[in-house]
This record gives sequence, structure tokens and C-alpha cells, in this order.
Amino acid sequence: MNVYDVTNWKPRGKPLNVYEDIGAVINAMIKDIKARQTDQAAKPGAVIYIPPGDYSLKTRVVIDISNLTIRGSGHGFSSLSIRYNTDDTSGWHEINPGSSHIKVENTDGQNEAILVLRDGSPRIGAVVLENFCLDGTSFDGDQNSYINGKTGILIESDNDACRIRDMGMVYLEHAVVVRGADALDVSGNFLTECGNGIELLGAGQATRVSDNHIGAGPNGYSLLAENHNGLLVTGNNIFPRGIDSVHLRDCYRTNISSNRMHSFYPGMVTLEGTCKENLISSNMFERQVEGFAPFIGVGNGLGDDFGVVQVNGDGNTITSNHVTLIIPSDQVQPAGVTPTIFRIKRGDQNLVGANHVISNLGVYTVYLDADTTNSHVFDSGAEDQFHSDSDSYGFRATP
Amino acid sequence: MNVYDVTNWKPRGKPLNVYEDIGAVINAMIKDIKARQTDQAAKPGAVIYIPPGDYSLKTRVVIDISNLTIRGSGHGFSSLSIRYNTDDTSGWHEINPGSSHIKVENTDGQNEAILVLRDGSPRIGAVVLENFCLDGTSFDGDQNSYINGKTGILIESDNDACRIRDMGMVYLEHAVVVRGADALDVSGNFLTECGNGIELLGAGQATRVSDNHIGAGPNGYSLLAENHNGLLVTGNNIFPRGIDSVHLRDCYRTNISSNRMHSFYPGMVTLEGTCKENLISSNMFERQVEGFAPFIGVGNGLGDDFGVVQVNGDGNTITSNHVTLIIPSDQVQPAGVTPTIFRIKRGDQNLVGANHVISNLGVYTVYLDADTTNSHVFDSGAEDQFHSDSDSYGFRATP
Amino acid sequence: MNVYDVTNWKPRGKPLNVYEDIGAVINAMIKDIKARQTDQAAKPGAVIYIPPGDYSLKTRVVIDISNLTIRGSGHGFSSLSIRYNTDDTSGWHEINPGSSHIKVENTDGQNEAILVLRDGSPRIGAVVLENFCLDGTSFDGDQNSYINGKTGILIESDNDACRIRDMGMVYLEHAVVVRGADALDVSGNFLTECGNGIELLGAGQATRVSDNHIGAGPNGYSLLAENHNGLLVTGNNIFPRGIDSVHLRDCYRTNISSNRMHSFYPGMVTLEGTCKENLISSNMFERQVEGFAPFIGVGNGLGDDFGVVQVNGDGNTITSNHVTLIIPSDQVQPAGVTPTIFRIKRGDQNLVGANHVISNLGVYTVYLDADTTNSHVFDSGAEDQFHSDSDSYGFRATP
Repeated sequence: MNVYDVTNWKPRGKPLNVYEDIGAVINAMIKDIKARQTDQAAKPGAVIYIPPGDYSLKTRVVIDISNLTIRGSGHGFSSLSIRYNTDDTSGWHEINPGSSHIKVENTDGQNEAILVLRDGSPRIGAVVLENFCLDGTSFDGDQNSYINGKTGILIESDNDACRIRDMGMVYLEHAVVVRGADALDVSGNFLTECGNGIELLGAGQATRVSDNHIGAGPNGYSLLAENHNGLLVTGNNIFPRGIDSVHLRDCYRTNISSNRMHSFYPGMVTLEGTCKENLISSNMFERQVEGFAPFIGVGNGLGDDFGVVQVNGDGNTITSNHVTLIIPSDQVQPAGVTPTIFRIKRGDQNLVGANHVISNLGVYTVYLDADTTNSHVFDSGAEDQFHSDSDSYGFRATP
Repeated sequence: MNVYDVTNWKPRGKPLNVYEDIGAVINAMIKDIKARQTDQAAKPGAVIYIPPGDYSLKTRVVIDISNLTIRGSGHGFSSLSIRYNTDDTSGWHEINPGSSHIKVENTDGQNEAILVLRDGSPRIGAVVLENFCLDGTSFDGDQNSYINGKTGILIESDNDACRIRDMGMVYLEHAVVVRGADALDVSGNFLTECGNGIELLGAGQATRVSDNHIGAGPNGYSLLAENHNGLLVTGNNIFPRGIDSVHLRDCYRTNISSNRMHSFYPGMVTLEGTCKENLISSNMFERQVEGFAPFIGVGNGLGDDFGVVQVNGDGNTITSNHVTLIIPSDQVQPAGVTPTIFRIKRGDQNLVGANHVISNLGVYTVYLDADTTNSHVFDSGAEDQFHSDSDSYGFRATP
Repeated sequence: MNVYDVTNWKPRGKPLNVYEDIGAVINAMIKDIKARQTDQAAKPGAVIYIPPGDYSLKTRVVIDISNLTIRGSGHGFSSLSIRYNTDDTSGWHEINPGSSHIKVENTDGQNEAILVLRDGSPRIGAVVLENFCLDGTSFDGDQNSYINGKTGILIESDNDACRIRDMGMVYLEHAVVVRGADALDVSGNFLTECGNGIELLGAGQATRVSDNHIGAGPNGYSLLAENHNGLLVTGNNIFPRGIDSVHLRDCYRTNISSNRMHSFYPGMVTLEGTCKENLISSNMFERQVEGFAPFIGVGNGLGDDFGVVQVNGDGNTITSNHVTLIIPSDQVQPAGVTPTIFRIKRGDQNLVGANHVISNLGVYTVYLDADTTNSHVFDSGAEDQFHSDSDSYGFRATP
């Protein structure tokens, strides 16, 4: 009764074609659930199953009930970037993503494939979106713009204990956007070739972002969080490109640990605004240069003295990371600048200890700006790799 | 044949109403499986599916066969604590947890919703409980007691390669209790607003507790392990309250790394008894004070000199952690005491290195008691933040 | 239409018995999918469901389409090693693995249960194998040889975004073998009592191996990777035995962090060939000696001076690990040698910092060979626990 299959549902009235508009079908199912579950004490929700198939979504799905699971049978990711940058794909086996494959082709004037939004109390909760594919199908212009105005999932109102997992998302300008998250779980997803991967906006707390494959476009974030307390970012493999791999804005007590990050631009992890007491530990940072022809020459506008990691705020901790930075000397931006690994731009009591940096260039492993105080720097490079514009610090070179 | 649906099963004889007692239905299914699978060489078990819905459990489920999966379609967590502490919920959309939602309302004189127990050989194995909701519905008294005598899942006999994942559990005095675990996997669960989260009792080895959201009540443990060797605790976001976030009793070679923990009491991680050679690394510890009205003034009875982390035993390792401790000075307990971060109470060869502590107060970042020998303390605070009652240690201040 | 159940499929023509040969059934399904999905732009693939049951596989499954999910309802692992090393199992409840249980009994002259292979473009992608059991049923000779020529899953051609998860595999000489992996995800599996666990051969990039229980035989690897860039190995609980827990050959920028490893032989983590800029951080290493009678006296041929971790290559980083090495002194191999923890055999700019070693023996915590340059060693043991045959290093003892 609470199990729906999008390919096998016969509501009364006008029939709907799920392949032409899966959004309309899912909305009709949600309407049906709400019509059946009217007792405040008994709203278990439902599971809506999407079998493997190619579906178009023309109408935005609006989820305004708790306890709804939408589940497919496969993330179905396939690289559209390689396809569009290949001259002749006429001999290819297949040219589109697949599995439970939803083409995001709104004709309703909306930008999102799925919107989660509910006013009143309690916060909407336990919405689970798992194991299907949201495919934006194309970007504007030459297909390498990463711009099309499309969003995969937007959770707009405050929410509790929601889950987004095992999804595939491709060629969306925004893959996952969540405002007001509490105990959100974003895990096991393939969020690649999207303008932005995961954006946690407004504010939030106690979220997990783990075990994902993520790679944003050159003008977006792989992971962006604002005003979050207690975000845990672990076990992710974050590919290029992305303005940042992880960008924190005014976040407190994030734990970014045991991730692998790979980027072609400065600023892989940026702590912007006033970021306090965040931990960056046991991560692998690989900073290389672009090698894929369509993106050569594209950058994020930052200089190589910005830092592979840049910190603004107080009491942050950077320990036990490995950083490799390899840039052909003639590609350093701006020319002649000394590339920087850990740049502490502003703040009190930041600590950088027991990190290891490998580079083909002369670098500053740690650079303290004038507006820093009581910094602690140790075992993170040689004395001549350290620079400070402030007098307020402790330093010890790696033996 | 080995796929059961609790809402669509017609055994011969007296019909059972799954909504009135899902426990009786599942027990009847297990009886059916055992009647059909009698060949020692061919006991594949079965999967029992629980669609979204509201079920009461009046009879304890007893699992005495290996290879049984009980699977729902959603953890369905919803905060009962917020609900019960809200004056008027008449306008709320919903007031109960949902998805595959089981109200634990035993009338059989038992305390557990699910008991896993089998004598003889081999140990019971490959039992999988996943993706449904166990809801204790209410606590005694004012609903903030976290006491009702109810247990969600109890694995009582020695077991191998069992899995508890993606579950939601709420308002149970004990969520998950496992004795004699080998290669247990507890992952992806929302175990919140339970008296205790995960209790690994008796003894065990080679267990993983990962990727969970956990938050116990003020008089219980978020995670307790006894006599475990080789327990891995990683990727968890552990909320308040909980006597401890992680409590180890006589455990060896645990790895507690890459977690985020948040607590309102001293003793977030406690190594009790004789705990040897455990690793605590790359964790975010946030020690704050209670802000939720119903629990203001409630504590775990420990003083702030107990340590955010307290170690009893030998050869333990504490590295690369960030600790924030913020307590209004007039709330320090007992008044006038110096709050302590890493307290090495007893033992030989414990190491505390490359940790970072931020506090609004003067603290001891490391405190060595008289009964400690050969401790190693470095890069974990200033000299005046270090205290030792023993002469047997090495110390180096953070630069 | 794209949902298949192996127990409920009636193709035209000769009927197939799924219990006698599940391989033939799955191959027929794949043929059916290919016959139906012929449009290059619309190949969503399918999901093939394997309910709990005992199936024999006599014909190798060949997957040559993208977007195929094969899914069971349970990993079904059960220890065959304990069974075969027990004199009398006549009173046992069950003697075989279960759940969605496939006995790998090829009669087609092939070695693999499942082969993934496709030529041409694009690379095969989004193949998902999840939550069933591949059981090799027996090893040659006395059942403790870990040799039978059988492979569970072989992905032979270049591949993108494939997933192997939640599987149980037992008594296979090779559990998972993948060549040419890109963005592979191997997670949540029980790969135990197999000759080798996971072998990532040829080359690869950006793979995640996480959250697994793994334990290879004495003559195989729990995890082997060749020519991989950006492999992330985290959250795994790796049991004995295994030549190595993790063996890297010519790998770059791997992150091995937050794992628990347990071994009976030297060389738990080996970086062979030219391994550059890999990170080994926040891991628990337990090096003990064999206690299970059938394997006493079996070793991997390496001496205890090989290193618990051995490094060949440049720029690698070893920080924040705990190592316990306990060997009865009369079992040290070869007799009289000083056991070694971190052995840097060859290479430039390797770093070993802030690790903690506990042993019952006098050990070298760090040993630098003559062919090492610019090594950095700090806070990883006492001065008399350090040995170098090279003059090119920095050293600082743990306080």
C-alpha cells in the first residue's frame, strides 16, 4: 500500500506517462500518500521505486511529507564530458547515463528536479533519495561551461535526518543544495561533472558528507558549507575541477579527515569568513595542472600564493596531511610568485603541525599573514619554507 | 520462496494481523523458514521485507537462524524529544516516526524488540537488520528520563559477520546490544534519543562501527565496548548527550579516528579498566554546555578535571585531535577546578602528541596522574597547560 | 521490464534451471537486455535480482553492458575455514554460506564467476554488484591451501564508476580483480577466507576501497594495487592472514588512513617498486603471531627486519599511526634479528612522524637503508630505536 512503482501505477483519472514526465507521476503519488495518510499520528510515508529505464522529468517533484523514500536501482553515471569532447561518438556503445536514469528537462519554469519544502512543525525529516541518476543532459554553449541553471535536489526548508545516497548526478549546475540541515547524511554518491557538488547553505549542524566521489566544474564548489557546526567530511574522493574541493564559510568545528583531494587550481580547501576550530587531518592533497584539452587555460582566478589551503579564522587545526604540488615553473600564476601550501591569512591560535609537502618548486609550506596571532607551526617544512608577516607565532622546522 | 513481505503473507491456520503484532508475524516466518530449510547443507535463510507502515510489536522477534535479512524501506527517525518537550503539537504535520516504523510495545513480558540467540555450532552469522525504524514510543515519567526498560536489538549469543545498518532507533533505553561479536558491522544508522546507542558487551573482535549518527541520553553511552580487540570506530557523528561518546572497558587496539563528537559532560572518551594500545586520532571533540531547557542542570556526575579524554591502561596513543572546550566559568564543576583535556590516570607508555586545544578557560591540556610511567607528551599545549604528579615522562611544549 | 528475478524468468526456448546454473540464466538475461536495448541513446541497463537461495554457477557470467546491477539480499558469509578445520560438523546447524548464495562451480573451463569485459568506447561503466555471496566451496588439498584457481569478480577492461559492495566472498583464490579502474568503489564487503581480497591491477585512478572486512590467505594480498593514482583506503578492518594487508606497487598519492589492520607476518603495508607521495595515517597496526593450529609455522617468507611497513620510493608520509608488535622472542625470524617497524628501504624525502610503537621486544621503530636520502624522522621512538645506514636524514626522538 505504501510501496509505489513509477512504471506500474494506475491512478484514477487522466493517465500519466512516466517516461514522458516522471515528475508528474511522483507528484501524483505524493498526493495519493497525503490523501491516504491524514492521521497526524500515523504518517509512515512510502517508498517510490524507480526501475532502470530512461525517464524525462518535465515537472519538478515537490516533496512536502516526511518519511518518503525515492529509490532506484543504480546510479548510472556515465561521463558526458568525455562524450561531448569526442569528435565522433557514432560508434559508441552508448552515449547517455543509465540505470534509473532521469533526464532533467523541466518545462514547468522551475530549475530543480526535486524540491523538498515544507513549512510548519516539525521540520521535514527522514526523506531519503537513493540510488538513481539525475542527468542535466547538456550544458550551455560548448558543453564545457558547467552552466545550465539546473539543480538536482534542493532541500529548501529546515530538515532533520534526511539522506541522499548512492545517487549519480551529472551535468547539473547544482547537484545537491540543502538549507538548514540537521543530521543530514550525504554518502556514497557519484556527483561528478556537475557545476557544484554539494552546497550546504544558510546554516546547519551535525551533518555527515562521506564516502562520495565528487568533482565539480571549474566555476563551482565540490563541497561548500555555510554556518555549519560539527560537519564531518570523511572518506571522500574529490576529483578536479572545482573552485575548491572543500569551501567552508563561517563554519565551526568541521572535521575534514581521511579524504583524497585532487585539484588543478589554488585553494583546494578554503576557510572563508570567520571559520573557527575546524580540523583538517590525514588528507591527501594533490595539486597538479590541467591536462584535459578543453580546460587548459581555465582557472579559478586565484594565484598560487593563495595557498593550497587557506585559513581565515581562529583556532583551526591542520595536522598529518600530505600535500603534493607539482606545477611546471612556467605555469605558476602570477609569474614569479612563490607557491604556498598552508596560508594562514587571518586569525588567532591556528595550528599547522606534522604535515608533509612535496613539490617540484620552491614553496612556502606555511605562510602567516600580518593579521595572524599566536600561530603554532611545527614539523611542516624547513625554515626557509616558512614565511611570516606577523611576529606572533611559534615555529619549529621539520628535522 | 525465500522472500517474505510482512504485509502479504498467508500462513495456514490462524491469521495474524501484522499491524497489531509484527513480532508474531516475523516469528511465524522464521518458523516457516526452519520448517522448509532442514538440510544442514542448504540453509540460505531468507529476506523479510517490511514496507513503510505503522506496526506494533507485541511479541519479541527471536532469530535463531543464520543468513536472515530483515529489511525495511527507511529509517524513519523523527525527534520525540522535541515533540514531548513542545507544549502544543496539535498543529504538527506528524507526531511519530515513520517509514518502516515499528512501535516497540511488548506485551509478552520481554524487553527486546529483536533477540538474536542460538546455541551450538557454528556461531549464528550473517544476520542483517537494515533500514527500518524501532521506536520505543515513550520514556518513563516526564519523557526525559531515557528509561523504559526497552531494547531494540539484542544479539545475545556469539555471532559472526552480522550487520546492523541504516536503522533508525528512538526512545529505547538500549538501542543495540551485542555480546560476543566477531566481524560485526554497525554502520549508517541513526541511533538517537536512545538511553544507550551501541553496547558491545562481554567480548568481541574485529568489529566496525562507522558512519553512524549516534546520540545517547544523559545516563547512557553512545558507544560502549568491553573486552574488544581491534574495534574500528570511524566516520561517526556523535551528538550529545551520553555519559560518554565512546566508552572502552578493557579494550585493546581500538582505532577511534575521523569522528566528530559533541558532548555536554566531561569524559567524552573514557578508557576504563585496563585499556591497552588504543588509538585516538584525527577526531573533532566539542565540549560545550547544555542549552536545551529540559536538561539544564543534568550532568553525568563527573568533574571537569576528569578529562575530556581519560585514559586508564598502557600504550595508548592520542594524536592529531582537535578539542574545543567552552564552559562558562561559573559552570565549571566542581567550582574552582581546572578543566582537563587529556587525563592520563594510570598506566605505562601512553602518548599524547600533536593535538590542539582551544578553550575559553585556563585548562590542563595534559594531566598525568601519579600512577603513570613513561608517558610521552608533545606538541599538545604550552608548558603551563601541562601537569604531572609523576616524574616519569617526557614533555615538549607546542612551539 | 528492466527488472529481472533469476528465480522467476521464462525466456522462450529451452528452459534454464537457475539452481543448477545461475550463470547461464544471468547470461540469457543480459542477452535479452541487449536485444531489447539497441538504441545507442537509450541503454539504461537493468537490475537482476537474486533472492536468497542456493545456486550453482557452472557458466561464467559475462557482463558487456554498462548500467547493469546484480543485486542479492545478503552477503551470507560463513566461515569455511573453521568448518573444514573442525573434526566433526555433523551436529552443526548449517555448514555452508547462505543468503543469496552462489557456489562457484564452473564447468565451462573458465576460472571466474563473473567477468566484466567490453571493447570499444566508452569504457564500460556503472556496473554494480551488490549484496550476494560468491562461495568457492573448497580449496585444494587440506582446505588450508587458499588455492583453487577460482576468481569471484574480474573486471578486465577499462571501467568507470563501477561498484562492488556489500558482497560476501569466501574460499576463492581471488575475490575481486579489477584492471584499469577509474572511480571504482569497493565498499562494505566481507571478503574473507579468500586467497586474495582486492587486486587493482594494470593501472587505475581515483578509487575508493572503504568500509570492508577483508582477510586474505597466507599467500595472497588483502589489498594489492598497481600503478594507481589517488586511491583512498579508509575505514577497513583487515584481518589476518595475507602476505600484506595493503601492498602498493608503483602507486602514487594513495591515502591509507583510519584503518585497522591485524597480521601475523612482517610487511603489513608494503610500498614496492617506485611508490611516490603516499600517506599512511591514523591506522592501527597489530602485528601478532599465528595462533590457529592449522597455520602455525606458516609465514610469508619475510624476516622481522623487513618492517611492519616497508617503503620504496619518494616523498611518502607516515604519521599518527599506532603499531603494536608482540612476538615471543623465540619466534623472531630469522633468529637474533632486530624486528623493525618502519623500514625505509629506498628513496628520497620520506617522512615518519608522530607514530607510537609498543612492543615486547627491542625494536627499531625506524630503519633507514643506505639508499635513502633526505628522510625526516621525528617523534616515532627513542634514539636507540632508530637506525640509519645513510647520513642523509633529520631525526628527533620522541620526548
